Amino acid sequence: MSKKDIHPIFERLLQREDRQKRLGQQSKVLWLTGLSGSGKSTIALTLERMLFENGFFAQVLDGDNIRSGINNNLSFSMEDRQENIRRIAEVSRLYLHSGIIAINCFISPTKAIRAFARDIIGAEDFLEIYINAPLDVCESRDVKGLYQKARRGELKEFTGIDSPYEAPEQPDLEIRTDQATIEEATEMLYRFLLPQIQIKN
Amino acid sequence: MSKKDIHPIFERLLQREDRQKRLGQQSKVLWLTGLSGSGKSTIALTLERMLFENGFFAQVLDGDNIRSGINNNLSFSMEDRQENIRRIAEVSRLYLHSGIIAINCFISPTKAIRAFARDIIGAEDFLEIYINAPLDVCESRDVKGLYQKARRGELKEFTGIDSPYEAPEQPDLEIRTDQATIEEATEMLYRFLLPQIQIKN
Repeated sequence: MSKKDIHPIFERLLQREDRQKRLGQQSKVLWLTGLSGSGKSTIALTLERMLFENGFFAQVLDGDNIRSGINNNLSFSMEDRQENIRRIAEVSRLYLHSGIIAINCFISPTKAIRAFARDIIGAEDFLEIYINAPLDVCESRDVKGLYQKARRGELKEFTGIDSPYEAPEQPDLEIRTDQATIEEATEMLYRFLLPQIQIKN
Repeated sequence: MSKKDIHPIFERLLQREDRQKRLGQQSKVLWLTGLSGSGKSTIALTLERMLFENGFFAQVLDGDNIRSGINNNLSFSMEDRQENIRRIAEVSRLYLHSGIIAINCFISPTKAIRAFARDIIGAEDFLEIYINAPLDVCESRDVKGLYQKARRGELKEFTGIDSPYEAPEQPDLEIRTDQATIEEATEMLYRFLLPQIQIKN
């Protein structure tokens, strides 16, 4: 191996387009935002499966695989919440450039934090999906018992209780999960997504 | 959507095995370690292309897409070097569980730091590849001019100059890049890898 050889041979570098073509899809990042209990993760995981069964290749990024892994050294301080979202956006960007559809579900409560994520990912590949259910509906679901804890003061700055949620003004799609079943909500998202991920001829 | 609906339906969750089957491969993490200039990135990018042309799906993680993205807020302090490797290992683990072969090229100079990465990824999926060339060969290549800078004292704790490189004692594969062309080195790695990534029937 000579010095000359060691330079990357750029014309042979695998491109995002090559990967997308192989996977038969255009990659995108779906950014699901909404209150805890609004149904983000459930819809994301159902969509991931539906996409797979229809020949697409997607990856859900959520608390389960992110908070327990790459972000396991972050607290819930304001600074760390920003770093949490930054890393998620960067991981999504890696997946995007691997040709894979990333489905992210994180509360991401402020317009600023979602704009920050959009900047990292690139506006042309970022789809903001507002998973909307009224607070009282989310609180009545309380799958993880987090609202109860927040009401008892055991969780500080919990979105919707003692920390605000800023709804997107112009999301790419809004889904009211108090007015739809999981199947309906996922179907709605799938139909919205399809023209965005199909390879154009 | 009722409270009951909101629980993830686990039997329908997409598994690593589903993804591997779709991609026609077993996923692994290849961890290429070696001095700056040993040829890690060149081999990794050539392998990535070769795998793709043979129907596999891999992703190189290197300084170009990691240091400029998810790790762009890390310095070269000892603490940050550890955090650098931790995040790389966590990103690799995400790819691994997405069914994708991750090809990592980072100097990762100490046995401890590589053991740390192996722990995060899981020993059964971690392949340590030692890209070995003598220091004087690497220094004479000096693609990025880093050795010159280090010799002038402009880069501190540069591996091989004023910071030690601990060679792997029992790497899964060792490639001497001073004794092989890029093509030969990549071919060697490909042949080693093939039985590990082919789906067993």
